[in-house]
Amino acid sequence: MVNMKHRIGAGAMGLFFSLQSLGHVIYAQEKPSADQQALEQQFDALLSSESIREQVKLLADRPHHLGSARGKEVAELILAWFKQYGWQAKLETYHVLFPTPVERELQLLSPTPFTALLKEQVVEGDSYSTQEGQLPTYNAWGADGDVTAPLVFVNYGLPADYEELDRQGISVKGKIVIAKYGNSWRGIKPKVAYEHGAVGCLIYSDPKEDGYFQGEGYPQGPYKNEHTVQRGSVMDMVIYPGDPLTPNRGATEKAERLEREEAPTILKIPVLPISYHDALPLLTALKGPVAPPAWRGALPITYHVGGNGDVKVHLKVKHSWDIVPAYNVIATLKGSDYPDEWVVRGNHHDAWVNGADDPVSGLAAMLEEAKAIGELARKGFKPRRTLVYCAWDGEEQSLLGSTEWVEDHAKELSEKVVAYINTDGNSRGFFRAGGSHALTGLVTEIARDVRDPLKEVSLFDRKRAQEITSTNSVAPQKKLLDKKDYALQALGTGSDYSAFLQHLGIPSLNFSFGGEGPGGDYHSIYDNYNHYVRFKDPDFVYGKALAQTAGRAVLRLSQAEVLPFDFEGLHKAVLEYAVEVQSLAKELKQQQELNQQLLDKSIFEVAADPKKTYTTPKLKAPVPQIALDTLFSALDSLSVAADKLNARIAAFQGSKKELTAQNGRLYQAEKSLLLEQGLPRRPWYKHSIYAPGFYTGYGVKTLPGIREALEEGHYDEFQHQLRLLEQQLLILTEFLNATF
Amino acid sequence: MVNMKHRIGAGAMGLFFSLQSLGHVIYAQEKPSADQQALEQQFDALLSSESIREQVKLLADRPHHLGSARGKEVAELILAWFKQYGWQAKLETYHVLFPTPVERELQLLSPTPFTALLKEQVVEGDSYSTQEGQLPTYNAWGADGDVTAPLVFVNYGLPADYEELDRQGISVKGKIVIAKYGNSWRGIKPKVAYEHGAVGCLIYSDPKEDGYFQGEGYPQGPYKNEHTVQRGSVMDMVIYPGDPLTPNRGATEKAERLEREEAPTILKIPVLPISYHDALPLLTALKGPVAPPAWRGALPITYHVGGNGDVKVHLKVKHSWDIVPAYNVIATLKGSDYPDEWVVRGNHHDAWVNGADDPVSGLAAMLEEAKAIGELARKGFKPRRTLVYCAWDGEEQSLLGSTEWVEDHAKELSEKVVAYINTDGNSRGFFRAGGSHALTGLVTEIARDVRDPLKEVSLFDRKRAQEITSTNSVAPQKKLLDKKDYALQALGTGSDYSAFLQHLGIPSLNFSFGGEGPGGDYHSIYDNYNHYVRFKDPDFVYGKALAQTAGRAVLRLSQAEVLPFDFEGLHKAVLEYAVEVQSLAKELKQQQELNQQLLDKSIFEVAADPKKTYTTPKLKAPVPQIALDTLFSALDSLSVAADKLNARIAAFQGSKKELTAQNGRLYQAEKSLLLEQGLPRRPWYKHSIYAPGFYTGYGVKTLPGIREALEEGHYDEFQHQLRLLEQQLLILTEFLNATF
Repeated sequence: MVNMKHRIGAGAMGLFFSLQSLGHVIYAQEKPSADQQALEQQFDALLSSESIREQVKLLADRPHHLGSARGKEVAELILAWFKQYGWQAKLETYHVLFPTPVERELQLLSPTPFTALLKEQVVEGDSYSTQEGQLPTYNAWGADGDVTAPLVFVNYGLPADYEELDRQGISVKGKIVIAKYGNSWRGIKPKVAYEHGAVGCLIYSDPKEDGYFQGEGYPQGPYKNEHTVQRGSVMDMVIYPGDPLTPNRGATEKAERLEREEAPTILKIPVLPISYHDALPLLTALKGPVAPPAWRGALPITYHVGGNGDVKVHLKVKHSWDIVPAYNVIATLKGSDYPDEWVVRGNHHDAWVNGADDPVSGLAAMLEEAKAIGELARKGFKPRRTLVYCAWDGEEQSLLGSTEWVEDHAKELSEKVVAYINTDGNSRGFFRAGGSHALTGLVTEIARDVRDPLKEVSLFDRKRAQEITSTNSVAPQKKLLDKKDYALQALGTGSDYSAFLQHLGIPSLNFSFGGEGPGGDYHSIYDNYNHYVRFKDPDFVYGKALAQTAGRAVLRLSQAEVLPFDFEGLHKAVLEYAVEVQSLAKELKQQQELNQQLLDKSIFEVAADPKKTYTTPKLKAPVPQIALDTLFSALDSLSVAADKLNARIAAFQGSKKELTAQNGRLYQAEKSLLLEQGLPRRPWYKHSIYAPGFYTGYGVKTLPGIREALEEGHYDEFQHQLRLLEQQLLILTEFLNATF
Repeated sequence: MVNMKHRIGAGAMGLFFSLQSLGHVIYAQEKPSADQQALEQQFDALLSSESIREQVKLLADRPHHLGSARGKEVAELILAWFKQYGWQAKLETYHVLFPTPVERELQLLSPTPFTALLKEQVVEGDSYSTQEGQLPTYNAWGADGDVTAPLVFVNYGLPADYEELDRQGISVKGKIVIAKYGNSWRGIKPKVAYEHGAVGCLIYSDPKEDGYFQGEGYPQGPYKNEHTVQRGSVMDMVIYPGDPLTPNRGATEKAERLEREEAPTILKIPVLPISYHDALPLLTALKGPVAPPAWRGALPITYHVGGNGDVKVHLKVKHSWDIVPAYNVIATLKGSDYPDEWVVRGNHHDAWVNGADDPVSGLAAMLEEAKAIGELARKGFKPRRTLVYCAWDGEEQSLLGSTEWVEDHAKELSEKVVAYINTDGNSRGFFRAGGSHALTGLVTEIARDVRDPLKEVSLFDRKRAQEITSTNSVAPQKKLLDKKDYALQALGTGSDYSAFLQHLGIPSLNFSFGGEGPGGDYHSIYDNYNHYVRFKDPDFVYGKALAQTAGRAVLRLSQAEVLPFDFEGLHKAVLEYAVEVQSLAKELKQQQELNQQLLDKSIFEVAADPKKTYTTPKLKAPVPQIALDTLFSALDSLSVAADKLNARIAAFQGSKKELTAQNGRLYQAEKSLLLEQGLPRRPWYKHSIYAPGFYTGYGVKTLPGIREALEEGHYDEFQHQLRLLEQQLLILTEFLNATF
């Protein structure tokens, strides 16, 4: 159903490409034009894995987090390189709040005293692990606090885990919880703990998810060793990301700021991330009910829930809450034909520690693109649209640099940005792309054109093979075998596309390779060059492949006569989400009705073990009959409009001026989907199709207004959000009908 | 669809029950008659949990395995008790082969020398663990052998695991394998290892399945500690159970015997079961590919597959192969009305060590029944049919006592046995019943009449509540909520019903309670009174409940005017199995065709990690189109016949002589389903509906002839077995049409 017509790069290529005169251009074509292909071949020829390697090594040679001296040096290095590549470049600096720990203490007081190390260890053969200037292990945006309380193990610390605790009659009120990393964005865990009355939160890395259960620990293997700790932000960024003190505006020096106490995204309880070395004595001490099977990790103990008060823990965290400069590097190559249409490309440059993987592997690939494009420009290539390459600071603390820049330049970006293409850490394996579904055709074409560096097939074929072999039943396997489109993932949050896509509705993409480069180095001191070349992308061939894909996205968007948006791709995705929501509604209704019957018949009590504490679950409110007919009919109209638009584009023979105007409408269309008031309880998030889940974090919730209303049982809100969604879809439909 | 008419115990009850004159009896009734209810109430009143406790304590006070002095004493004790209870009782002795180990050695030779303990440890507070006379930890029926070879970890050691090893390019030929206990009957593991060329097999208990992952190890908790070992038979009993030297005949003193070398059920390679203490150094030493996620256990290591030769193991096992006496205790209470119709009840008395759970908890319940029935008889109750209570010896070595007795008396048992009711170890929890589906109505009624001792509901309601709450999706939950019949499980093997049901086609049942009494004591020295009363059924209330259910089955079968067989229950079960086989055929065909496509398109190679060894799976032969129309039409005829038979029974008004003759046909009907030649490659197994799986062991394969032919790709055999199955169903249909 997706219209596969492509309209890439039928444009002027500069001096050494054939100059195509404008006028009666064929806009719809199966493949990029010969000119575009030639451009891309020359682009590819300028990319070097060795050069990516050198940049990774250099940029990750020392800790370079936000606010550090080396962080500033890295920004300046990048700035200098951009200039050297022939780009106009500058630093754009914001002044953001950044807590760093000054006191961290964790003790098991009873039954057996134990003091946690809270420190990663130097390992043999890895000189990076000995460096000065590493940020201590902590979770930024946890509160200052000094608490002593009983400990409760809460599995992943998600709402369903607290429902299980309720059934066992265990409360976390006034207690400290210990949760495993995994299954959600980490910031959800202390937030949900706080919602349930906990006074502190520990998050540990269980060897099941990311340690010896998966493979040998570092340095023998790539996984977490007993001391590895995952740092990370726990800001409540599903409310809004970026500087907590300056929501909706750039954190310029003079910007109006909230008081820290007012900032809703800073947590209310202290949090610490710990290694399994530090978690083991705590978990071993816990008694009470044995944890449910799905809760148990790979430590050689019986996992208990605890909660009976005899395991007491002291947790103390104190931060220095400073305003620090965040240095974004912004480089520009002005467009020859459409200087006010910008293709923006970004990757952050700050790391928690060395960050060879996160973010430098992606950053180096982006710099390699910029270098190659600069070289092409030197040889006469003129980008038709303006290219803007950005290296963000403060991403790790919850997208500070990119969010502040986007908020600061919101109006201009809304008008001018055709698309934003993001990358972040990169590894070895399969091509992973997420983003705006109107760009499905563009991504599919790129995935078919770029070849896997280690296998003699296209990225598309390799990814499809992986999807097929990781699926177990015949029907979906057959469907995958026949599929023609790259299955673009919807974007939640987790990297710098968030403000572009979810706040401004700018069409966005996010690319990476992964799946075959294992690692427990994430946000630890072991995410360094040594680990990267042993376990991730040793020859930087996937780094080059990343530059090939993201570079193609930039070049095709830059050179396209007609911008490669296809709203049938968007329609198809939204239809799928609507069907999911419909099934969810039906399932929730059936489940609630069945639960009513089961409670009426005391089925839960009858089944429960007479020797264990068991509390009958509370019945949820009845789920109303939910009809999505009007949504489906709005989607039908959208589909008709998308098809008709494609037909008009194929037949278009207007002037360049008309073309410019209509192209402008193509990249503006997605903004029709922005909710004026934003999402319930988080107005910063305005996209009606994509948002990070309120209780999943990074994990996306598509059609978030209706889906989350349903999941959380807000049925009136559901109806309201459904009307809003339909309204935005109709606005988009009308917008498309008035385009070309 | 199951006909729920009941025809229980509308009979003569002896002196103190109202004597009902025969003639025009109402055979179909909703509930057991008032007389029968009164009888059962009196029976219940004579059952005592305390008495069961005392018997468990006494019978499990010392190790009493087959061939031991205490084993003989236990048989003699039981014999004396039966006599004391007023039964005619005798020992029936068979002379069976029984290997006991004289040498057991296991060493890791390289890279780091380690000698396995091969011994469970004395634990504090459990004097049983210190006793003399415990059988060493070993697997009976493994070969003598002395081998030194590289080690390979093979997960559970099942055929699919070797397919995975093939994909990784790892062969076990000439090597020693180490497999985890679990997921199949243990005997399958060395058998499959041998089929793949292994020269030795270790089977260890991983703490994931049955150790600290589940809960604390003994004595802190019920689960396996680091030294606990599961003994057990590894005879290839899916060929035939019982004495390997005397298939198809009783192992009497003078019986003709095979040479040991000829016996097909004795394994060809040495085998040892080991604790995780002994397994850990071996598994830790293994390198090579990391084991697939589903293979990994709960030891604090990275599980590797090994296979590269640098981990060498020495395994030596030597047995004393003796012929020992197996003492079956057979007790009889002669029937007043139908002395030549026997209701047989059995439980084994031998244990691997003390066996408080396995088998004494079931045995004591059975003895309690015999005592109560004896007491009733003393007060004037006359069983209308002959009751035969059996305590079997040598069950642990693969059903030696029961199999030899059944083979020895095959003709008489075929003629006379109405049904065989088996029990074995018993615990706390939910009522579990398996057996001949023509007895579904009988079991349902019993499960509805007996109440859970700790919850104020019937066994039926409690079991249904458990089924509902352990199911995740709404549709099957709703179906369970509406269900009227107890879902009788099909029987594979694993206890003494095998020869009755699968060799002779005698309708059989197997009862137990379980699901809430955790334990890693199975076949270890810790299966003793101390463990049992701490973790299983501390107050023996489920022991009493077991006596109530099995006793009711005996009494209802004994007293029934019309025997409670309902072939609509059988039809319904077979129809379900046929639908399963049809789905399986369809699925295998689709899978094979898809795999052909995937191989043609090199999907597996394309998906495979370029840095890992990967061997493309071999394509299986095309699966022919399989039509089961004729089977379904045979089942339709069976259903019609079953319904009509039920109608004739309800209307029956014949003489007592006619009734006797027709009742005889009811319990003989299941024998119509016996295959004259038995199953392919294992003619001892004659039942066309139920058999232990050739590659699952205990796990049942229903419709084994066609199901296993399909699973193993023998498509010609499938057609042949389908014709045979249809033929047996038609014979049954005609038999039913000629009954009543």
